[in-house]
Amino acid sequence: MDNFEATRKIFEQGGFIGDLGIQLADLGSGWCETRLDLLPKHLQQDAYVHAGVLTTIGDHTAGAAAFTMVAQNEYVLSVEFKFNFLRAARGESLRCKAQVLKPGK
Amino acid sequence: MDNFEATRKIFEQGGFIGDLGIQLADLGSGWCETRLDLLPKHLQQDAYVHAGVLTTIGDHTAGAAAFTMVAQNEYVLSVEFKFNFLRAARGESLRCKAQVLKPGK
Amino acid sequence: MDNFEATRKIFEQGGFIGDLGIQLADLGSGWCETRLDLLPKHLQQDAYVHAGVLTTIGDHTAGAAAFTMVAQNEYVLSVEFKFNFLRAARGESLRCKAQVLKPGK
Amino acid sequence: MDNFEATRKIFEQGGFIGDLGIQLADLGSGWCETRLDLLPKHLQQDAYVHAGVLTTIGDHTAGAAAFTMVAQNEYVLSVEFKFNFLRAARGESLRCKAQVLKPGK
Repeated sequence: MDNFEATRKIFEQGGFIGDLGIQLADLGSGWCETRLDLLPKHLQQDAYVHAGVLTTIGDHTAGAAAFTMVAQNEYVLSVEFKFNFLRAARGESLRCKAQVLKPGK
Repeated sequence: MDNFEATRKIFEQGGFIGDLGIQLADLGSGWCETRLDLLPKHLQQDAYVHAGVLTTIGDHTAGAAAFTMVAQNEYVLSVEFKFNFLRAARGESLRCKAQVLKPGK
Repeated sequence: MDNFEATRKIFEQGGFIGDLGIQLADLGSGWCETRLDLLPKHLQQDAYVHAGVLTTIGDHTAGAAAFTMVAQNEYVLSVEFKFNFLRAARGESLRCKAQVLKPGK
Repeated sequence: MDNFEATRKIFEQGGFIGDLGIQLADLGSGWCETRLDLLPKHLQQDAYVHAGVLTTIGDHTAGAAAFTMVAQNEYVLSVEFKFNFLRAARGESLRCKAQVLKPGK
C-alpha cells in the first residue's frame, strides 16, 4: 500500500470524519484537498458554521497532507491545533487545501 | 432572560453541539462545565478521540463561560482557536471545565 | 502627521527597538519591511539568533504594518504573539516583511 | 557537569540574555525562575515594556526549565513561541516562573 492509498484510508476509517461528511477531493505529495457539503448539523446557534467544524476539516486535511510524505512505519500526530478566524463561515460547502511547508528529515 | 438562561440556550440551539452530544453540566459567573459521552462517531482512524471533538468541546465550553459575563446586547466570538495536546484521549466520556481568566471592561 | 510619519516614529521612540538596532526599511499602506544587522548580542548560547530577537522584529514589524492603517486617534496593540520556527537563524542580517491580511472595520 | 550547572551556563553564555540583563533567580528539576530589572532600553514607544522583552524572558525561562530535565547529550529547542497578553507590563522589574507540564519520554 503506497502513501496515497494509506492517506485515503484515513478518510474511510475515521468515524468522526465520516460522520461529519468530510470528503477527500484530491491529493498529491505534500498536499491534500477536501470538501464538506454543509448541513444544519454543522451550524451553531447563529446559523454560522461551528468553529469545531472549520477546524476539524483544517486539522484533518493538514494531517492527510503530512501523511502523504511519511515512511510506511511512521505516523502523523497533531501536537498543536491552532486557527485564527478571519471571517465567519456561511454557505453551501467548505473547501480546504493543506500544503506541507517544511517536511521533517 | 438572564445570562445563565441565555448560555443554556447556546447548547440547545446549536446544531453541531447537539449532533455531537455535548451537554451542559453546570455553569456559574465566568465558568462552565460540559460533558460528552463518547461514541464510535467521535473517534478517528486509530480509535482515539478525534482532535476536532476535543477542541470543539473546549471552544464551546470556553465560549459559554464567557457568555455568562456579557451584557444582554453583547455576543461572544472566538478569534483564536488554539490547543496543545498533552496526551491522546480515550475513554467513556470527556469532561471539560472553562474559566474566564480576564473579563473585558 | 500622517500615518506613515506616525509609524516611523514608532521606530525612533521605542527604546527596545533602538537598543536592538531594528531599522525601518520601507513601508506602505498595510505593510512594512524592517532589517537588523546581527551582532554577538543578538545570539544565544549556541550562536544562533535568539528566538526573542526573531520574534521581536516580527511583532514590531507587524504592529507597524497595522499602524499604517489606523485612524489618528487609534492605536495598535498585540494581543497574541505567536511564532512557529521552521528553521534556526544564522547570518549577517535579518529582513522581515509584514502584511495586513484583514483590516478591521 | 550536572543538569543544573548546564542550565546555569545557558544564562552565562547567551549574548542576548546577558545584554538584556535577564538573571537566573532559582531552579529545580523541571522549573526555573528568572528576573529582570527594567531599564529604559526595555520599553516601547508608550513606556510599557516591549512585548519582545516579555516573551524573551518567558521563552528563555521555559527553555531553562526544560533543560533541567534532559539527558547530557540532549538539547532543548523552542518550536512554538506563543504568548497571550492579559495586561500591559510596567514597573521596576519582571519575575518569571516556568514549570514543565509534561516531560518527554
